[in-house]
Amino acid sequence: MPHIKVDNNLAGIRGLMAFRPETAEPMGALANALLKDTDGLSPADRELIATHVSYLNDCFYCHNSHGEIACIYLDGNRELVDQVRKDYQHASISDKLKALLNIAGKVQQSGKSVTTDDVEAARKQGATDKDIHDTVLIAAAFCMFNRYVDGLAANTPTDLSTYAPRAKQVAEHGYGKHIFSTTQPIAAEV
Amino acid sequence: MPHIKVDNNLAGIRGLMAFRPETAEPMGALANALLKDTDGLSPADRELIATHVSYLNDCFYCHNSHGEIACIYLDGNRELVDQVRKDYQHASISDKLKALLNIAGKVQQSGKSVTTDDVEAARKQGATDKDIHDTVLIAAAFCMFNRYVDGLAANTPTDLSTYAPRAKQVAEHGYGKHIFSTTQPIAAEV
Repeated sequence: MPHIKVDNNLAGIRGLMAFRPETAEPMGALANALLKDTDGLSPADRELIATHVSYLNDCFYCHNSHGEIACIYLDGNRELVDQVRKDYQHASISDKLKALLNIAGKVQQSGKSVTTDDVEAARKQGATDKDIHDTVLIAAAFCMFNRYVDGLAANTPTDLSTYAPRAKQVAEHGYGKHIFSTTQPIAAEV
Repeated sequence: MPHIKVDNNLAGIRGLMAFRPETAEPMGALANALLKDTDGLSPADRELIATHVSYLNDCFYCHNSHGEIACIYLDGNRELVDQVRKDYQHASISDKLKALLNIAGKVQQSGKSVTTDDVEAARKQGATDKDIHDTVLIAAAFCMFNRYVDGLAANTPTDLSTYAPRAKQVAEHGYGKHIFSTTQPIAAEV
């Protein structure tokens, strides 16, 4: 049961965001800027980083939500998403993404854990300054989102089939107000 | 030296925000919504929570920046800020703020560390749902900001006297674009 009174019809972060729209709006805008951007890292790469960090933070709601979104971008390749979540070193992904996931995992522990060697290893695989920036900030942002969800004990559906419809909406329409509004039509939010 | 090429005239998070204005804008808006709000927790309370969490995360730039802002709101009581930073249980602050700082410290470890007892203890001291929400989200947000700053090895001035002028600007004008823009006049950003 959530630590504060939220709309129980809204799962996970959505219930929290509806409770406090003033903070929800910039959080949604940050998620859009970081996860929907197609310059450099792909939206699939970005969602995989988010999923991996959320898994490391043991945030069931977030790693299933974002894993499901990544799955849509990867044409339903759920096995790949699960491999990246738990053991990316052996996943069929690029060496560049592996080097960036290493940085993301360091950020999850602490900002100071990222070394010059970690960054150089990513650069050797073709990572740009923007890729490195975005990886660090995606990982850092999910250290926020995960703590927000679990720190307030947000409603977390255990039925994994309930994550797919919302993932489809996010993949198609982004992280706009529709993710926490029950009344506003999605089309108006794109 | 920062892991990516940033404007070395801009300290800490400001250099990173100037590198990527698309993510800087929602982060500034989130900081404004969380830290400048006067409903429930005061801006001083909010900055003290931010300072304490940043200290726990060992983020020198953030705990000094936000400690300096808290100091302005507390009429220059630097001793109180330092006590909250390191040992809030013995600081001259309300029992309500102590109970909320306990929750913030739990969030810094992990969202799941917050217990129903922690939340009940804060309610007994008069904390509302909004106070609890904002405490969790401030703590979570600083787990992002701290990792962003240290994960990219942002420029961190060691001369503490350099933190005061920027703190004054933030206390007066908020977390707008002026914190990462060198060209835009502050007055235009309020």
